[in-house]
Amino acid sequence: MTVTPEVKSLQIAALARGYAAGAYTPADVVAEVFRRIGERGDDGVWITLRPIGDVLAEIRPGPLYGVPFAVKDNIDVAGLPTTAACPGYAYVASRTAPLVERLLAAGALLIGKTNLDQFATGLSGIRSPYGVPESPLVPGLISGGSSSGSAVAVSAGLVSFAVGTDTAGSGRVPAALTGVVGLKPSRGAVPTTGLVPACASLDCASVFALSVPDAVTTAGIMADGLALGGPAGRLRVGVPAQLEFFGDEAARSAFDETVAALAGLGHEIVAVDFAPFLAAGRLLYEGPWLAERLAGVGDFVLSRPGEVHPITREVLSRGGEITGVEVFRGLARLAELRAETTATWADIDVLAVPSVPATVTVAEMTADPIRLNSMLGHYTTFANLLDLAAVAVPAGMTGEGRPHGLTLLGPSGSDGLIAHLADAFHRRQAERNPDGMTGALRQSLEEVTTRAPEPVVLAVVG
Amino acid sequence: MTVTPEVKSLQIAALARGYAAGAYTPADVVAEVFRRIGERGDDGVWITLRPIGDVLAEIRPGPLYGVPFAVKDNIDVAGLPTTAACPGYAYVASRTAPLVERLLAAGALLIGKTNLDQFATGLSGIRSPYGVPESPLVPGLISGGSSSGSAVAVSAGLVSFAVGTDTAGSGRVPAALTGVVGLKPSRGAVPTTGLVPACASLDCASVFALSVPDAVTTAGIMADGLALGGPAGRLRVGVPAQLEFFGDEAARSAFDETVAALAGLGHEIVAVDFAPFLAAGRLLYEGPWLAERLAGVGDFVLSRPGEVHPITREVLSRGGEITGVEVFRGLARLAELRAETTATWADIDVLAVPSVPATVTVAEMTADPIRLNSMLGHYTTFANLLDLAAVAVPAGMTGEGRPHGLTLLGPSGSDGLIAHLADAFHRRQAERNPDGMTGALRQSLEEVTTRAPEPVVLAVVG
Repeated sequence: MTVTPEVKSLQIAALARGYAAGAYTPADVVAEVFRRIGERGDDGVWITLRPIGDVLAEIRPGPLYGVPFAVKDNIDVAGLPTTAACPGYAYVASRTAPLVERLLAAGALLIGKTNLDQFATGLSGIRSPYGVPESPLVPGLISGGSSSGSAVAVSAGLVSFAVGTDTAGSGRVPAALTGVVGLKPSRGAVPTTGLVPACASLDCASVFALSVPDAVTTAGIMADGLALGGPAGRLRVGVPAQLEFFGDEAARSAFDETVAALAGLGHEIVAVDFAPFLAAGRLLYEGPWLAERLAGVGDFVLSRPGEVHPITREVLSRGGEITGVEVFRGLARLAELRAETTATWADIDVLAVPSVPATVTVAEMTADPIRLNSMLGHYTTFANLLDLAAVAVPAGMTGEGRPHGLTLLGPSGSDGLIAHLADAFHRRQAERNPDGMTGALRQSLEEVTTRAPEPVVLAVVG
Repeated sequence: MTVTPEVKSLQIAALARGYAAGAYTPADVVAEVFRRIGERGDDGVWITLRPIGDVLAEIRPGPLYGVPFAVKDNIDVAGLPTTAACPGYAYVASRTAPLVERLLAAGALLIGKTNLDQFATGLSGIRSPYGVPESPLVPGLISGGSSSGSAVAVSAGLVSFAVGTDTAGSGRVPAALTGVVGLKPSRGAVPTTGLVPACASLDCASVFALSVPDAVTTAGIMADGLALGGPAGRLRVGVPAQLEFFGDEAARSAFDETVAALAGLGHEIVAVDFAPFLAAGRLLYEGPWLAERLAGVGDFVLSRPGEVHPITREVLSRGGEITGVEVFRGLARLAELRAETTATWADIDVLAVPSVPATVTVAEMTADPIRLNSMLGHYTTFANLLDLAAVAVPAGMTGEGRPHGLTLLGPSGSDGLIAHLADAFHRRQAERNPDGMTGALRQSLEEVTTRAPEPVVLAVVG
């Protein structure tokens, strides 16, 4: 099989240019993708890899013509097993989730289904019997979860984009730790039919990509309708008055620089009270929503506990102790907190937070799997409870050589606004610090910098 | 004390005309109100009656100048006890609920606080240690609940309007059984601060009045903003394909006539599948929302069970058996049912149902207090779960001499639309059947017919 040397970046625009110029064909790209996958060997990224012939048979025209992608293995694709990273739970799906159908109809090429923290419960990337997909950026570093395989597949240059899910931060934490863009659209924008529920009322499908425009394009195709309003000139960017890095001073310095960069883009920085956001987040991990996780997959977990990952079982089993009265009190508390944060949104357009407060190695996470998991969610768990849209974007490496990420959040429907700012920030980072990333990610950043600085496409797609 | 014979109807427009013409003063009206209250004696309507001097001291200008009203005793008024019809639970409120403050600031005169089914749990009007306020329309008939005293106060001509609350139908069932208008605005339109919670996420303040315009005027003052869009010409009026009258064939005939009258007003009648509405309603009385009732007043109920009405205790205690998992499954089921009914709303503008399927005597309700209570809610319990606005309007008497009521419902924000149709229907009833009502209600209907047929005021108030 001929591998054309031109296949380098898998960014959507780069592939489109390569196809248009006749430099390579979709078959060449698929071959290169499988070559890279084979080269990595047993990296814990894939739960199901499709036969290359099946992929090649599906090449078809469309806006995502010849664009390789992956799907997290808690999302149904007809004819393939859905495992949710639990072999005992696995079933062969009879219908393809609508969000995947739309991508396939647009010409995207499904390479396979990716590893995850079992039942999408966790932000660690280690709670799976299918192996641990480490971050490609730093040896021994977790990729984060629960969408671990999807994030690594993009970061390692194996696909152009990958579908994830995000309930507590599963679409943002792994983006930060693997140095890719993670877009979690507004709740309800992308249909959740065909997803194994984590917390059904909060679950969102998300996307990992090499650039913000690629994330917006693919999320727009997945969505029933994605709000892509433009920017309002100088934005008021909220930053928590209470920042917490759990002792990682290099991360604190990196975030200071990130905030300075946002100000350097011409935006106003506003300190905001982060307490109600944190309080909302605690409801998800320490409170009544654990019962919603059990409501989703509890019949399986309770009837076949031996087939569940021990940490996942421990977390989910707590949901059984929660009373109905506690749930309604939690819902009432959330309504109060939402009202408090609504007042904050009168003062700011966008909230900027570190994607993760600190980074964690596989060894550290294995030794302290529940506390460090909660730590990782410090800046993410509140988003879906408070009905916010979010985009995580790489922000370079810290002074200690760990990846650092910025997450921008806005009220439901602000997807376009936060994407615009994220794109501007990402381009600036790529221009200033082209050596700050490794591997496929650096290639993608080179692609960003060599492109004309075009705005994010603003049409409402899907 | 001089009682001027001119004080007859307490409708707001009638009072305004009387005051403008110098026929009587607010002091005359207050005196007449207290005379009528005294004449009725121990009728179970009032839990707290204010001293007449306190009322007279508060006469002030405003859009509700000199308009007497009552407040259900699960709503706080500073300096008065809030009992929720449970003497052991009672406390003297330190702050007045904002909705009441707005009425007082508008010039309305608070006469007292009214009886209710304890903790607003029930549709029966008999679950109170403060007596049973019977319907003024038929001796021995229940007034319905939980806002029993408020509805009777209006029906008996003791006040111009009365504030109630409505979770499962407490603002509509008593309106039907006492022959007055009951408006339950869209959820969230009127602030619920200062209410003793029944199901906090569903509770609405409501209003009982002698006419639809009076209900709209007072609800508009209570509200943060009431959507009062106008009618859209010929409306599509949905009527359940599955009608249930629990054997009351006279009620069935009366509802047939009611539907014919709506058609006679120029509207299209559309049969709709009522199954998802009924299924949603069952979640409230038979399912997880019982836990929300306990979340509200459960600490008191569990710690001092001997002070709780035995039927109320029996109903509330079931909430303690509900698990958190069941609540989240119930919320998910509700989301499915809401999606099903959303499809129905594409076919209709308004849903028309009997306010109650059948009527009940005090003796019957006492003998069978839980089953008959559920029966009364057949056409009401789904409304707040599905986030609908509703207005109950009298529809005359059945062939067996029992009151019959029509309830019109629409999606959140349709308050103005359903009020327009209700007003048109009410005027038509008054013109056709002036002898179909008794006492103060007949007087109010006479008032309706002698007025020019003016439209409901459409300004957004509050």
